[in-house]
Amino acid sequence: MAEPKVNELMEKIVSLCKRRGFIYQSSEIYGGIAGFWDYGPLGAELKRNVKDLWWRTMVHEREDVAGLEATIIMAPQIWKASGHVDTFADMMRECPVTKKRVRADQVESQSGTAYYFVGALYDPSPGYAHDDPDSDYGRRSVEDYIDRYAPASLAEIDKARLLHLISERRRTGGKYTAALEGEPLLQASNKILTYTCDNMDARSLAILVPAGKPAESAFKKAVEYYSGPCRFEVLPVLSKKEQVTESADFHPESGFGLGPARPFNLMFKTTVGPVEDPDSVAYLRPETAQAIFAQFKNVLETSRQKVPFGIAQTGKAFRNEVTPRNFTFRSREFEQMELEFFIKPDEVIEVIHGRVATVADGSWQGEPQPNWGWEVWHKYWVDQRIRFYEGIGLPRTTLEEYWQKPEELAHYARACVDILFKFPFGTQELEGIAARSDFDLSQHQRFSGKSMAVFDEELKAAWAKVDPAKQAELTERYYQARLKYLTKSGEPAEKAEKLARADAEGLAKGAYVPHVIEPSAGVDRLILALITHAYAEDEAPDDKGKLEKRVAMRFHPRIAPIKVAVFPLLKNRPELVAKAKEVRDLLRPLMTVFYDDAGAIGRRYRRQDEAGTPFGVTIDFDTLGEKGPELQDTVTLRDRDTMKQERVKIAALPGLLVQRLR
Amino acid sequence: MAEPKVNELMEKIVSLCKRRGFIYQSSEIYGGIAGFWDYGPLGAELKRNVKDLWWRTMVHEREDVAGLEATIIMAPQIWKASGHVDTFADMMRECPVTKKRVRADQVESQSGTAYYFVGALYDPSPGYAHDDPDSDYGRRSVEDYIDRYAPASLAEIDKARLLHLISERRRTGGKYTAALEGEPLLQASNKILTYTCDNMDARSLAILVPAGKPAESAFKKAVEYYSGPCRFEVLPVLSKKEQVTESADFHPESGFGLGPARPFNLMFKTTVGPVEDPDSVAYLRPETAQAIFAQFKNVLETSRQKVPFGIAQTGKAFRNEVTPRNFTFRSREFEQMELEFFIKPDEVIEVIHGRVATVADGSWQGEPQPNWGWEVWHKYWVDQRIRFYEGIGLPRTTLEEYWQKPEELAHYARACVDILFKFPFGTQELEGIAARSDFDLSQHQRFSGKSMAVFDEELKAAWAKVDPAKQAELTERYYQARLKYLTKSGEPAEKAEKLARADAEGLAKGAYVPHVIEPSAGVDRLILALITHAYAEDEAPDDKGKLEKRVAMRFHPRIAPIKVAVFPLLKNRPELVAKAKEVRDLLRPLMTVFYDDAGAIGRRYRRQDEAGTPFGVTIDFDTLGEKGPELQDTVTLRDRDTMKQERVKIAALPGLLVQRLR
Repeated sequence: MAEPKVNELMEKIVSLCKRRGFIYQSSEIYGGIAGFWDYGPLGAELKRNVKDLWWRTMVHEREDVAGLEATIIMAPQIWKASGHVDTFADMMRECPVTKKRVRADQVESQSGTAYYFVGALYDPSPGYAHDDPDSDYGRRSVEDYIDRYAPASLAEIDKARLLHLISERRRTGGKYTAALEGEPLLQASNKILTYTCDNMDARSLAILVPAGKPAESAFKKAVEYYSGPCRFEVLPVLSKKEQVTESADFHPESGFGLGPARPFNLMFKTTVGPVEDPDSVAYLRPETAQAIFAQFKNVLETSRQKVPFGIAQTGKAFRNEVTPRNFTFRSREFEQMELEFFIKPDEVIEVIHGRVATVADGSWQGEPQPNWGWEVWHKYWVDQRIRFYEGIGLPRTTLEEYWQKPEELAHYARACVDILFKFPFGTQELEGIAARSDFDLSQHQRFSGKSMAVFDEELKAAWAKVDPAKQAELTERYYQARLKYLTKSGEPAEKAEKLARADAEGLAKGAYVPHVIEPSAGVDRLILALITHAYAEDEAPDDKGKLEKRVAMRFHPRIAPIKVAVFPLLKNRPELVAKAKEVRDLLRPLMTVFYDDAGAIGRRYRRQDEAGTPFGVTIDFDTLGEKGPELQDTVTLRDRDTMKQERVKIAALPGLLVQRLR
Repeated sequence: MAEPKVNELMEKIVSLCKRRGFIYQSSEIYGGIAGFWDYGPLGAELKRNVKDLWWRTMVHEREDVAGLEATIIMAPQIWKASGHVDTFADMMRECPVTKKRVRADQVESQSGTAYYFVGALYDPSPGYAHDDPDSDYGRRSVEDYIDRYAPASLAEIDKARLLHLISERRRTGGKYTAALEGEPLLQASNKILTYTCDNMDARSLAILVPAGKPAESAFKKAVEYYSGPCRFEVLPVLSKKEQVTESADFHPESGFGLGPARPFNLMFKTTVGPVEDPDSVAYLRPETAQAIFAQFKNVLETSRQKVPFGIAQTGKAFRNEVTPRNFTFRSREFEQMELEFFIKPDEVIEVIHGRVATVADGSWQGEPQPNWGWEVWHKYWVDQRIRFYEGIGLPRTTLEEYWQKPEELAHYARACVDILFKFPFGTQELEGIAARSDFDLSQHQRFSGKSMAVFDEELKAAWAKVDPAKQAELTERYYQARLKYLTKSGEPAEKAEKLARADAEGLAKGAYVPHVIEPSAGVDRLILALITHAYAEDEAPDDKGKLEKRVAMRFHPRIAPIKVAVFPLLKNRPELVAKAKEVRDLLRPLMTVFYDDAGAIGRRYRRQDEAGTPFGVTIDFDTLGEKGPELQDTVTLRDRDTMKQERVKIAALPGLLVQRLR
């Protein structure tokens, strides 16, 4: 029962987004491009407001966060260090001919006759196929070829033996295998084997022919496949055919046997510079986070920040999703707002403060304290981020916190909380807040060869005052943590131990690699959450007082694309128009203003309700003083949600509105 | 003399950008990536301020501009329509082996011996090379091959004849030429020809061997080239060798003969979706403008705008520059701020208003008027944009206007003005303001098949009142303009005439394709202009009163990354610190504030001078009332540029600073 409702609601929202200029399909006039969406005039303002508020909250209003704006294309080594090159992938299977890929876990099953080819012979002797146009060209088995190419003197050779030799030759890539070469039989058949095998394309191929379709199509496809760039006639070699039912091993469109499941990297690839070769491959960043790690030392050294501090970045990121879906929720080009907040390892806190504050202490609800370890910092950021969402109009009841279970965490992660929003299509992630230990900086340290350690005078001084037993215990704990990371990251045991030991000994000198807490939010899915939450239907009287259905986008005034609409009651009364423009110009330096004089006033309200404009100001004859001086220079201020109207002095409007927009 | 100074200044600026956190090299810890730059904490704020001011000026403060935020990856047809797929290119020549490309006009010339190969034979007979290890393998001429392969019975055949036949066969791609096939001579030599030619890789190759280097290297390279994926031995066929001097036909590194000059497209390419094939190729946008044209109809229909109106967009764009240079001036990833301002064609203005206003009328300096044609609108936008630059601190004297000459304009352009800035490395373009006629919308109309015409009730009504002779004249003029566009765009004459006729007849129905004025600015080059202009060296007294060299970034307060720095005189006096934090918290909701309590006050001033912070507020003992109540709750307000200090009441600070920041 819920399903159709969900679809209906999403359809209404998608339709409103297009109609009012929030969101359009990218490249719509060319039929669109799957997974890409454009923001129209209202959408662009909404997005600006949300990003600005994030930046203001995360950067401007804090002492301990610096901003960064890095490029989308970066050195490819960054994605090697981050693990994206090796592991940021879906498992896919590829059609060997069309190169089309399907998700390994989503292959449609099929039935029919499967033809298996072990390869194809190609024949450089001139005009072979033309000499023999009526031969059963293209349908020979390996045995046929042996008949054909074996000279009379070798007629008695055991065919199974020859077959075996051919497969051996194929297996070894066309080279003789020493063990077989000594045999007299082989010496005798040397020439024919050399001939057939040297001229063999030994890629195997399977083709499914659905029941009722002619077998020829399999052979035609095989010839096409093996011909490739080759100039010779090719003679596909059939090894077997069999009936298959409900097999997931063939491409649903081409019928060719699928290759093995292989990781398909979700990063968009391009090449930088004038040469297109593997050395010039680069990627569009799949997340904004890594640039922050790569520039950590530069920011640390130039921003006058000390750990604990954060680096914030917003910007586009790209993922070549196999199946983009749910409107803008999972798209291929999207925007992120990420903070990497660098903190001292718990061992360092313990050296300096004797004890690490715990969540149970409750201090995470107040101002950050120097004795916070990762657990309190993590809890603090979860709390901060939820407050942010509440502050832009997503009530706590629309959000859920999902604390990942230990078995769901990456080996380096200490904790991860997903902040979920109840979308019409399901409860889905808006933001993840992860405690990622010192994994990221350590990875870049190993891959770049540049130290990511910070030096902390306070730690060095405190260390000297810690008693030796405690020193030993902390060193050991730090050593074990580093050793675990280095081992898991594939360093050989001896090297891992040596590096971990050096790291642990760094504590005494005041050196450590910072840990990080990462609140990582998706802008587009947040915009979608705000839009779906704002969408409301109710009833309002039309110009004749009759109740009509009304759609209002109940955005929080902080994020509303247009803050106030200004309406002269009538378009054709110059005094009204002049006064309205005066009000518009009064308000414009303070907020986004939309001036509209077209159509009946009720219709103008309705348009602004759909645009989510929280306030409407109407200039009428009372404003002009026609009902007496006490109403002169007052206007009607209408509230989008309650539709209530109040009479306000023009001079009081700026102050009143600025206050209500906060 | 000027050159070293320029370099020295640019070096100082680059160094300051890194040191103070304005701009870092992208991916610096991995050795960087040419043509990509990151903005550090100060740079990110500077860029935000500039972009925000542009948006405020172009969108929020105007009635007639709507914003848009489109994706970076769009349907590839967009770049076909815009001409970028076909013509956005540098001419490059490629090394056939290394695939490295050089700009055709920038090949370093070389001298030496050039070896020319006409192709290579490959020999599938087993172990050929091994049978004959001491042969002059790899150095044979075509004549050698004829000697080798011609059977005894053909020994008398004229070699020149055979050579000719081989070249014929090569020329025709390995096929017999009918005329030659009939000759008895050929019948006799059929087998040998077939053999050699069927086994020939007929790509020609040239290799330059510098004087003094052994000829063997040419043959080795040729073998390597022809071997490719082939499993046979290859026998390169030398046709000639010659001395060359100062030749630009060989790759400077590899020595291989360069291929012909071909256009190298500057768009970054990627593939969208799981299949990597030509159908899934997409481009990173090389400019933000095209999305505006592609979404023109959507914005028109949803934003309640009518022509004349504009659509503004800021965002990243990408160009795979062959030689990125001048710091951030020419980079591969950059940001644009573009406005497409759509206007009525002059013919439409003439219908409605009888006459088109001219620049000579002088009205372009005031508010936009309905009778403006493209010339006045263009002049108006040039003026507006220069005012913008003046408003953010680039005086008129640092700017130049360059009006492109008629012969420099694209066929569709009516006019184009470049606004240039005097960079230390030369006077270079900041922004171009082009009158592009109706070219862009017309292109997308033709390529998408979707009408880009608008319907104008006023035009339709006015048309009926125009006298028939005038109607005919306007129709003809409009017809000729459309015909010119359609013909230049490659439409066949008959079709072009038919389409132009239909367009011209549209006028009477109130329909036309809007023209456009395009002010297109580069954010990064503007930031660089602002930084180089702001950079100033002078002298200031140190803490002991001794004059020292000082660097100050004299940004206009509007764009300064940090607006005010707040300093407690001493860090270790809690009353000073508490008061300073009070001042910080008072100012923070209104502007970006930097709090700094570390080091001598003079050094703190110096750091903020380098950061370009226009105001410094110092909280001292007078603030605490230690010199008496009249100075209590006053602070020192220091001006970055004059270094003058004034005593200001804390309560008066917000108002005073907000005013000075405007």
